[in-house]
Amino acid sequence: MSKAVFYHAGCPVCVSAESGVAGALDPKKYEVEVVHLGEQKGRIPEAEAAGVKSVPALVMNGQTYHINFGASISDLK
Amino acid sequence: MSKAVFYHAGCPVCVSAESGVAGALDPKKYEVEVVHLGEQKGRIPEAEAAGVKSVPALVMNGQTYHINFGASISDLK
Repeated sequence: MSKAVFYHAGCPVCVSAESGVAGALDPKKYEVEVVHLGEQKGRIPEAEAAGVKSVPALVMNGQTYHINFGASISDLK
Repeated sequence: MSKAVFYHAGCPVCVSAESGVAGALDPKKYEVEVVHLGEQKGRIPEAEAAGVKSVPALVMNGQTYHINFGASISDLK
């Protein structure tokens, strides 16, 4: 089981990506953690370290995938 | 079973998104078709109609998700 972290900020683009992509991952292979960076600002450094520039973003398999564009990380600080 | 279409152009960003995201979708729920728009230019209009502006992009659940940025659709014509 691999871990996937979906970072978002509650925006409409984020909600769509969460249900449409993060929620579509193979549950036999991925455990998906959903992190709302607007409410959990303490996790912004961790997201930035993973290369997250904007939300929504999915960090998995050692890669960071920005999915469309909702908000910049800098706007969440 | 829902259909998901992954549009790409063979770029490194595309390859990463294909293996990392398109390949991670639940195989019990999604049948993923991979379309190389550089080699199948006849399918560019279909991608544009779905709202694809750049590749890699994943069209599923009636939504279009651009995953990071590899190339603009206009550069593939």
